Amino acid sequence: MRYLIKFSYDGSGFIGYQTQPNLRTVQSELEKAITRINDGKRVIVHASGRTDKGVHALSQFVHVDIDVSITSAKLKRAMNTYLPKDIHVINVKEVNDKFHARYCVLEKEYKYILNMGEFNPIERNYVFQYNHDLNVENMKDAIKYFLGEHDFRAFVTENKDKANCVRTITKARISLKNRKITFTFKGTGFLRYQVRNMVGILIKVGENKIDPIDVKKILDSCDRSKNGVTAPAEGLYLMKVIYKK
Amino acid sequence: MRYLIKFSYDGSGFIGYQTQPNLRTVQSELEKAITRINDGKRVIVHASGRTDKGVHALSQFVHVDIDVSITSAKLKRAMNTYLPKDIHVINVKEVNDKFHARYCVLEKEYKYILNMGEFNPIERNYVFQYNHDLNVENMKDAIKYFLGEHDFRAFVTENKDKANCVRTITKARISLKNRKITFTFKGTGFLRYQVRNMVGILIKVGENKIDPIDVKKILDSCDRSKNGVTAPAEGLYLMKVIYKK
Repeated sequence: MRYLIKFSYDGSGFIGYQTQPNLRTVQSELEKAITRINDGKRVIVHASGRTDKGVHALSQFVHVDIDVSITSAKLKRAMNTYLPKDIHVINVKEVNDKFHARYCVLEKEYKYILNMGEFNPIERNYVFQYNHDLNVENMKDAIKYFLGEHDFRAFVTENKDKANCVRTITKARISLKNRKITFTFKGTGFLRYQVRNMVGILIKVGENKIDPIDVKKILDSCDRSKNGVTAPAEGLYLMKVIYKK
Repeated sequence: MRYLIKFSYDGSGFIGYQTQPNLRTVQSELEKAITRINDGKRVIVHASGRTDKGVHALSQFVHVDIDVSITSAKLKRAMNTYLPKDIHVINVKEVNDKFHARYCVLEKEYKYILNMGEFNPIERNYVFQYNHDLNVENMKDAIKYFLGEHDFRAFVTENKDKANCVRTITKARISLKNRKITFTFKGTGFLRYQVRNMVGILIKVGENKIDPIDVKKILDSCDRSKNGVTAPAEGLYLMKVIYKK
């Protein structure tokens, strides 16, 4: 039986999402827990996508095939018993064996949080502690250039293989509250480091080092060397994964 | 010269505020940092009060006497260089030697945050993960009984010495947002575990196990055995310390 598992995690204690030998990853913790439930028979989970070291998720998905017969409710309960406290299963449902957690994704939404105010030790792993003022109005002007279909080659850190970098962004928004900036990006898919690289260039705009229109120029250039900034991982959250009905 | 130091900390990595041999405490980290600045001559910091293991502070104060000549701005900068990332100095100012961080306190404000919604791994050390619905209306009725001057003997965990337990609470309020309850308490002083014990009994009200009026009865009884519940530390924040002008 195939199950779709919705879960959240605190990325600060993991070396990343994907299994790596002898390292603590989200995937390996999930597989360890489900393998116990599956009478010790090894399972592999398939995620909607990876997140990098230090990145958090409030709503991430994997699908998994399990041999033992178990209800969705019991699978959720058992997983939360076996998982460490920094991963939590929110929901489990049975899906048919055509469903794939990665290939059936329609859209994803990410959030990035930056603190312009005083350093906050409580949020140090959960909000980028930038701790200086930024020109938020200019950043709001600049973020609009990301909307729509673009070749995001200039915003991908690893791009040796020249793969297809065309993606569509359907929401790109900045909100401000108590000297904290929240960036929201929704789109059909995101390349590795894309969100953190987009936030990085927006910070440069906020520092008045470049103009909002320069973001469009960099995007159009398709040249990664034009944009060398990557915002740190701790401010990034995978918020939503939207699947085909 | 005497300095008043305003600082914040993430309580989750400390055994508590007060120095204890061979254990990691907020006080000992502060004293280690200042001793380095004071040319290695040992200093003792005097706090507005202690917080217990796992409790956080967004605005806590100590005063300290330092022999070396240093401006407030430089002292702040030097401390933030030497302190670990889970303590942060917000502000330093020179005060006269009559000032005492504990004896000059007028009022303190605490906040307690409880999540009635789904377990959130990202907030597990920062918000009490109660994860069930509560009768918030009854809790709002009950919290009013704490307002004013009372003998809080029934809400103190350690009370062998029968010391004076009379305190005045000037603000006691509940707010609700996204299935998170925030309790705010402001008053002339708080006894050990008092806030967590008050929250504990309010949770019992929220569970419909007792009526709001029972909170008044327990308070009036001055009998600790009538109230055996203490809410966990991770939801508690010292928010403000207000000093005499």
